[in-house]
Amino acid sequence: MAFRIQQPVRHPDVDRAGIVYFPRFYDFFHRALEDFFREEVKLPYYELGEKLGIALPVVRIESDFDAPLAHGDLVTVELETEKLGIHALTLRYRVFRPASPMPAALSRIVVCAIEVPGWRKTRIPEQVRRAFERHLAR
Amino acid sequence: MAFRIQQPVRHPDVDRAGIVYFPRFYDFFHRALEDFFREEVKLPYYELGEKLGIALPVVRIESDFDAPLAHGDLVTVELETEKLGIHALTLRYRVFRPASPMPAALSRIVVCAIEVPGWRKTRIPEQVRRAFERHLAR
Amino acid sequence: MAFRIQQPVRHPDVDRAGIVYFPRFYDFFHRALEDFFREEVKLPYYELGEKLGIALPVVRIESDFDAPLAHGDLVTVELETEKLGIHALTLRYRVFRPASPMPAALSRIVVCAIEVPGWRKTRIPEQVRRAFERHLAR
Amino acid sequence: MAFRIQQPVRHPDVDRAGIVYFPRFYDFFHRALEDFFREEVKLPYYELGEKLGIALPVVRIESDFDAPLAHGDLVTVELETEKLGIHALTLRYRVFRPASPMPAALSRIVVCAIEVPGWRKTRIPEQVRRAFERHLAR
Repeated sequence: MAFRIQQPVRHPDVDRAGIVYFPRFYDFFHRALEDFFREEVKLPYYELGEKLGIALPVVRIESDFDAPLAHGDLVTVELETEKLGIHALTLRYRVFRPASPMPAALSRIVVCAIEVPGWRKTRIPEQVRRAFERHLAR
Repeated sequence: MAFRIQQPVRHPDVDRAGIVYFPRFYDFFHRALEDFFREEVKLPYYELGEKLGIALPVVRIESDFDAPLAHGDLVTVELETEKLGIHALTLRYRVFRPASPMPAALSRIVVCAIEVPGWRKTRIPEQVRRAFERHLAR
Repeated sequence: MAFRIQQPVRHPDVDRAGIVYFPRFYDFFHRALEDFFREEVKLPYYELGEKLGIALPVVRIESDFDAPLAHGDLVTVELETEKLGIHALTLRYRVFRPASPMPAALSRIVVCAIEVPGWRKTRIPEQVRRAFERHLAR
Repeated sequence: MAFRIQQPVRHPDVDRAGIVYFPRFYDFFHRALEDFFREEVKLPYYELGEKLGIALPVVRIESDFDAPLAHGDLVTVELETEKLGIHALTLRYRVFRPASPMPAALSRIVVCAIEVPGWRKTRIPEQVRRAFERHLAR
């Protein structure tokens, strides 16, 4: 089951053409990820380092942009787990505009668990794994 | 009476020291302004040009930063009208951290009504003026 | 032959961990694209609409992030043309840190020519095509 | 004597109206400050903490915005020292558009030296003070 948040498209998100400048889509995705950590993992995202001794850097991205988002759109961001490995996690994000069944954008983002400090590959901690398991895409 | 919104401090807002990089405070203020237009002026901020033929560029800023905001803080942004002129408007923004009665930052931002296109000084439209009048600071 | 620019990693580019927050990589790429338009296409990027009646929205991205960029790194951004179609263009960007032969990140970004206003698929104009042809990756 | 850098206004700096969104002016100023540290203080800005044990948070801002900056403008940012105290420093930034003798924006930014970690007021280190002294505004 997808995890969902709603966010308005705001003034600093859009460019001269009045639509979201593409790197800002990743800010929308990151807001969903931060809220997921707070509500589902029950651990603030920014405490990953202090509490669990890990970071989750992005190692790969694949994104398709099919429709523009305009200033004022109240968009829905969906986050699902596409793959759940031992050390890596593939997140699938989709953004929907109001009243549109087709996603405006779809993005697969692979993050990898590393120890901090040390910066070596490590296992995804159980507390994190369980939350993403509950949101596996079917 | 102040207009208020709540916003979490997120990952892209903070710098290396883990605190909000000062120009990002203005993004927090702008979110309050956009929500004020939607809820109080009853006109989306991004339709100011199309519907009322005006823009409200910033002409002056005075800001005091008294305390840092950290990632994860759920902050309250307050917007009040400090001065309401014929062509210009002084907005007062304050940001509060949870459980702190003192503002972390206070900012006076003067905006000026101009015609678009044309870019000439003009009167603040009645619909806009009335909303800001209801939120005059005492 | 690759088109190259050099850019320092600055304070607002890095996050709490002191490394570039991943969406900011796309800002580095976009700077290379803007400079490419000025120096190679001989047309400012922001005049694409007015002068040639087109826009080049991003429709697909594939990125691999292999090493972090830290504040102060003077990075080299390389732009090459990977595929040159009638209506679409695949750009390949690579970012190199000083004294490292391996890219810290590699990104393929597909842009598509559309008419503005009208927002319909169109041919890539000759002036644009010729510049990208001179920078085809081997 | 003012310290100067030149910077193009780029795509992500401008908003829907095609002009620089006002908080982005502070990014232009910060680039001048970072270059000042590298070239005049002979210390990378991001090493202030590690090398000198201080940070320079912004405590006050006064800005006047007199003219818009448009995408493509190659602007000159000037940095001068307006006041040089024991613990605090008032920087004066001005932005000029090409071929215009009047600044598009002027900003006074007060920064204060604090110990890190510890976050207590401290003296501005000699190496930093001397560089700003050479650039006092007359």
